[in-house]
Amino acid sequence: MAQISIQQLLVTEPKSQDVEVNGWVKTFRSNRFIALNDGSTINNIQCVVDFENFDEKTIKAINTGAALNIKGKLIESQGKGQDVEIVVEEIYVHGAADPESYPIQPKKHSLEFLREKAHLRVRTNTFSAIMRLRSALAFAVHDYFQRNGFYYFHAPIITGSDAEGAGEMFRVTTLDEKNPPLTEEGRVNYKEDFFGKETNLTVSGQLEAEAYAMGLGKVYTFGPTFRAENSNTSRHLAEFWMIEPEMAFYDLSMNMDLAEDFIKSVLRYVLEHCKDDLKFLEKRLLDEEKTKPQAERSEMALIEKLRFVVDNNFKRVTYTEAIDILRNSKPNKKKKFEYPIDEWGADLQSEHERFLVEKHFKCPVILFDYPAKIKAFYMRLNEDGKTVRAMDVLFPGIGEIVGGSQREERLEVLQQKMADLGIEEEELWWYLELRKFGTAVHSGFGLGFERLVLFVTGMGNIRDVIPFPRTPQNASF
Amino acid sequence: MAQISIQQLLVTEPKSQDVEVNGWVKTFRSNRFIALNDGSTINNIQCVVDFENFDEKTIKAINTGAALNIKGKLIESQGKGQDVEIVVEEIYVHGAADPESYPIQPKKHSLEFLREKAHLRVRTNTFSAIMRLRSALAFAVHDYFQRNGFYYFHAPIITGSDAEGAGEMFRVTTLDEKNPPLTEEGRVNYKEDFFGKETNLTVSGQLEAEAYAMGLGKVYTFGPTFRAENSNTSRHLAEFWMIEPEMAFYDLSMNMDLAEDFIKSVLRYVLEHCKDDLKFLEKRLLDEEKTKPQAERSEMALIEKLRFVVDNNFKRVTYTEAIDILRNSKPNKKKKFEYPIDEWGADLQSEHERFLVEKHFKCPVILFDYPAKIKAFYMRLNEDGKTVRAMDVLFPGIGEIVGGSQREERLEVLQQKMADLGIEEEELWWYLELRKFGTAVHSGFGLGFERLVLFVTGMGNIRDVIPFPRTPQNASF
Repeated sequence: MAQISIQQLLVTEPKSQDVEVNGWVKTFRSNRFIALNDGSTINNIQCVVDFENFDEKTIKAINTGAALNIKGKLIESQGKGQDVEIVVEEIYVHGAADPESYPIQPKKHSLEFLREKAHLRVRTNTFSAIMRLRSALAFAVHDYFQRNGFYYFHAPIITGSDAEGAGEMFRVTTLDEKNPPLTEEGRVNYKEDFFGKETNLTVSGQLEAEAYAMGLGKVYTFGPTFRAENSNTSRHLAEFWMIEPEMAFYDLSMNMDLAEDFIKSVLRYVLEHCKDDLKFLEKRLLDEEKTKPQAERSEMALIEKLRFVVDNNFKRVTYTEAIDILRNSKPNKKKKFEYPIDEWGADLQSEHERFLVEKHFKCPVILFDYPAKIKAFYMRLNEDGKTVRAMDVLFPGIGEIVGGSQREERLEVLQQKMADLGIEEEELWWYLELRKFGTAVHSGFGLGFERLVLFVTGMGNIRDVIPFPRTPQNASF
Repeated sequence: MAQISIQQLLVTEPKSQDVEVNGWVKTFRSNRFIALNDGSTINNIQCVVDFENFDEKTIKAINTGAALNIKGKLIESQGKGQDVEIVVEEIYVHGAADPESYPIQPKKHSLEFLREKAHLRVRTNTFSAIMRLRSALAFAVHDYFQRNGFYYFHAPIITGSDAEGAGEMFRVTTLDEKNPPLTEEGRVNYKEDFFGKETNLTVSGQLEAEAYAMGLGKVYTFGPTFRAENSNTSRHLAEFWMIEPEMAFYDLSMNMDLAEDFIKSVLRYVLEHCKDDLKFLEKRLLDEEKTKPQAERSEMALIEKLRFVVDNNFKRVTYTEAIDILRNSKPNKKKKFEYPIDEWGADLQSEHERFLVEKHFKCPVILFDYPAKIKAFYMRLNEDGKTVRAMDVLFPGIGEIVGGSQREERLEVLQQKMADLGIEEEELWWYLELRKFGTAVHSGFGLGFERLVLFVTGMGNIRDVIPFPRTPQNASF
């Protein structure tokens, strides 16, 4: 008999036909009703057992977490809550789960407890729903770009340059850990390392993606990136996945259009394909928020919030406009901001971004045309000589979800900028050559994938939306 | 005017309508015919210029590699070789490419030369075709698994264990490079490192994927993996992308079915979606092989070879049968093998695999049921007590493209195997727990993505099918 997933089984017309199914026991009620789940869906199939037909040993092994193979007949359900159920004829126990020692019992576990059990937490409803959504979102990303003429590009993970300066890096080495070879000057001799030079884990694939955009036109990366920052917050991971589209012949305005269309498209995809998981997570969030004071609860339920983003235009605001709004805002005047906004040029903090998005505009916001001084060297300088064509997409509850820019395509301007910042030209000779040969207007952005998953699942801690989180002092599993 | 890609333009009905297009000059013939390409396709659009209408400076800037914006009318082509062309009305030069210094001139460059110019080589026909195919293959992988009920799972890249023992690893660290902190015993004190322990780059996501398969049922990884082996061959990279599906309730036979169906499906996808690029690479390969003696040329052209794999069953052969065939083979009797096959238990070398695939069976082969001694500890022991449910898929010209197995799901057997090999249980406590709680038959395999790209593109060196290859002494760009 062909194997069939529970997801498929639940939409099969019941005709008392023979079916065979594998899965894990969620619950076993009254020695009669097994709720079986195989991970294909949040929903269980009810398997009805006449316990008198089975030996005691089998019945005793039917505990939460046990893996079973069940054969029986698929019939219209006699009870409420499901359309079909299985009248069980045979049970084979693949593997038991001793209720005394199996940690994932049918009760509420704290998220902190489950982080310690990252190898088992995907067996809970919450984490299976999150991880199915994560998978659907990842596919929606590929689907969007491939439908729109982008080519997927694998940026290198091990890199010989720290040019972007986006943050602290992890060193990658095979040199002797304790007594590395030294040069005559007494420095570590990286010429003897695996790659013949000092290498690190990438913080961004952007610069390489630019090289590919100048050949293939429109490309995107989707791969792991790394920051060795000692940030133990609910928003930071040392290892996370990033999506970085890069497009030749795109200016900043087209870049904003793309970012907005892209985000809406992937949200539309999960609204359409992941209804059951979203409903489950929406209810989870409502239950969680019931324990909070009214003022801290979300104004919208999860699915409503996603629909709101899909259905409304993102508000586009220049940095200069944003500074005006912030300067004249109540919290600024009442000195409620930790970092008061005094003058143009100030870097925006999370509190400012949240004020703009959650209090002032009450919708996703794209801030653009930032002061050059607070942005990266590769961003296109505007004609005013003091702002660059940078953009950040800010989301309620999440803050910055996308950061991007039009890139500086003029060789001399880029060289000047690098000189001002003390970046050696020989470090980035190849990046400069992109401007020497057939340079053109181009743009791109980066989207932190886990922040998107946070937004879609309504979870509060980024450690709960990646299978095995890497954070300071933690690389378990 | 909306931007349109050259791929779209080439299939647009010409009605003398206004069009605008961006791209790079491939060639400029007779001061009249610009072949323009934007990376969206291997094909160029012909732009016809009446040079008397343009100033000399513009005409002089139209060199190979220059980036142009062209406005004009789309008409039925007057010449041969294309259906439509543009009568040029306006030209804007985004960026010139000085023919004296731009390295990618319209002539044949060696692959070795282009590896030194990895930031520019995607502007050539060969590499743009390879990289578009790579992108299509990657999407075909996601598409196949998502259509078949698999969930995409991101295995961790930084790992705290070297349990699989699949090869030498790269160390990931933020400790002082020259004077790392030491313990009282004089060893490097990894407790002070970023993760509080020694960490490395992953060699495989399999063990973590098993944990996820035991919750979500069917999962797959597609991410970078690393080997710090000093292998300077045309088949090895230090950083490469691997696809690893892992399925609960699958035995070895289902695993073989999946591997075969999966490979055929992704090949079918590119045969359908990448005709022009495949035709270009087929011709490239034919031209290349013309320089070789007849005996070294391929028996099939590229597309024919892909169709052959799609249309024929992979031959399934036990290791034991394979040893018999090899022992009695001509090259073995005539002592032509570097490693003669004497007895059962010998590890198969590349020369043996190629004999089986290319000379004996002349089709893809799945070898299975290998001696336990030459395979990894986690593979399911057969009832004979000496073989394991391992499988390798062998491809002509490529060798092993897939390696997989049914996994040992019995706790005691796995513990015994680990004890025999000296693997500490506390290193893999969580992996063992998968066998303690709801264990079940499960299987999976790994496919080296670059080997698949090699096969599909007909290229001979793995450095030419990944954007920025990482090999010993090379981490440029």
